[in-house]
Amino acid sequence: MKLVTFEAGGKASYGSLAGDRIIDLGASLGPRYPDIRAVLEAGALPELARLASATAATHSLADVKLLPVITNPRKIFCVGLNYKTHVIETKRSDSAYPAIFTRFADTLVAHDAPLFKPNISNRFDFEGELAVVIGKGGRNITQANALDHIAGYACFNDGSVRDWQRHTHQWTPGKNFPGTGAFGPCLTTPDEVPDFGAQTITTRLNGEVVQHASLSDLIFTLPVIIEYLSAFTPLMPGDVVATGTPGGVGDKREPPLYMKDGDVVEVEITGIGLLRNVVKNEV
Amino acid sequence: MKLVTFEAGGKASYGSLAGDRIIDLGASLGPRYPDIRAVLEAGALPELARLASATAATHSLADVKLLPVITNPRKIFCVGLNYKTHVIETKRSDSAYPAIFTRFADTLVAHDAPLFKPNISNRFDFEGELAVVIGKGGRNITQANALDHIAGYACFNDGSVRDWQRHTHQWTPGKNFPGTGAFGPCLTTPDEVPDFGAQTITTRLNGEVVQHASLSDLIFTLPVIIEYLSAFTPLMPGDVVATGTPGGVGDKREPPLYMKDGDVVEVEITGIGLLRNVVKNEV
Repeated sequence: MKLVTFEAGGKASYGSLAGDRIIDLGASLGPRYPDIRAVLEAGALPELARLASATAATHSLADVKLLPVITNPRKIFCVGLNYKTHVIETKRSDSAYPAIFTRFADTLVAHDAPLFKPNISNRFDFEGELAVVIGKGGRNITQANALDHIAGYACFNDGSVRDWQRHTHQWTPGKNFPGTGAFGPCLTTPDEVPDFGAQTITTRLNGEVVQHASLSDLIFTLPVIIEYLSAFTPLMPGDVVATGTPGGVGDKREPPLYMKDGDVVEVEITGIGLLRNVVKNEV
Repeated sequence: MKLVTFEAGGKASYGSLAGDRIIDLGASLGPRYPDIRAVLEAGALPELARLASATAATHSLADVKLLPVITNPRKIFCVGLNYKTHVIETKRSDSAYPAIFTRFADTLVAHDAPLFKPNISNRFDFEGELAVVIGKGGRNITQANALDHIAGYACFNDGSVRDWQRHTHQWTPGKNFPGTGAFGPCLTTPDEVPDFGAQTITTRLNGEVVQHASLSDLIFTLPVIIEYLSAFTPLMPGDVVATGTPGGVGDKREPPLYMKDGDVVEVEITGIGLLRNVVKNEV
């Protein structure tokens, strides 16, 4: 399944994609599961799949407003420095552990929504990433069991305000301006991605490829990340893990390449989705 | 007022302290404001004060179980390196900006509750701190207006798992083990602390003073911190800011001094409260 959260006629719902149409699952399941996080909490993905296969599509994708895949994650983790090409361009050395920082949920925007460039900075940078959504929560999850805890994948643009990120050694400020984290377009369940390591991630700015890598290039694999995170904090259904960005970020280019009002930025992961956003100055 | 969140007879409520007794305000206001965060969201602190002055105390403090002052903050910010004595002991240099990292709400424990030492580490350290609770939310709050956004103060013990804090340059893991952040005992409103800068913060481990400073020693003052945070993220009622710890942390001592099962750790801020916790091995 490819699940979307959307708004139609002023009402939020969720559903599954059938080509360019949406099967509205929230219309019938909404009273029991108000959103996808609630579906995951109830372990109801199989129920969703059954319902989807028996229900006709009702909306055209073009007619709805997509919302972030999960609108209300309790925890959003970001992994830094998880592709060798990015480690090298930042002139950092290899690490035995993944670097972990966090985002607040109010930083998220959906596919096709504006990605907001803060007025306070002109160093707003793209970071195309694979996002993992946790399905089954847990603590001290082992690598062997980690994949069972994944509900699905999405594209993520970890929009980074570079000067604020580097005010100190802690990156929180530069990663938490409102509307700087694009997350979508859909939640692609793992059964749709049988050959995970063969998929590629590409970031384009105004049509030009600025980042490109294979998901097999991840230094810390998904099982390693999930084991590590759940060693120090309980993972919960709907939690999001942005797994790091490949080399090519704008801040390390000569000359630097930052995002500005009107730019179109895309993060595409084969088999998973294409996330497109127009950059807008914050109002 | 000194507000507490508590559980009595298996039911959560909140109230104000009258000596060692509690005026139960949730008993009557609960339907409208289920918790202190909801009180703050409604701007209802004055209503609470009026009700408190007209209501008799019903519980003895000794008979209830305290809960974290705010049980459900949306955002918990921690400021690193905000006392000169701590900057020096960490051998870091001065910074023009406060170092900001975050905690999840599931790391919080109340006064008199166990503070949990992770089994995975023997480097569990104390950090006595002043916590500020946001009353009125906002973005781009100026220093001149910042104090109007503070609902009150509490003591905080930013229990830190030093090896996990230093796995990489990002401190998130070492600051987010469950039950490692003590927060209490009460929310002391600013009118109770007319001479803020004259107050002192003291951390004791098994009765011995291990940290001691004046609140006037804060490098980044409360208005500076609130202006800085609200420049990159909207502050919301009930958000918590742990404002940093003075010198004397266990990890920088020779020999190091870590917390272990059975230890009693106290953070006392004059005029604000005394937060006491017994350290327990995580189960």
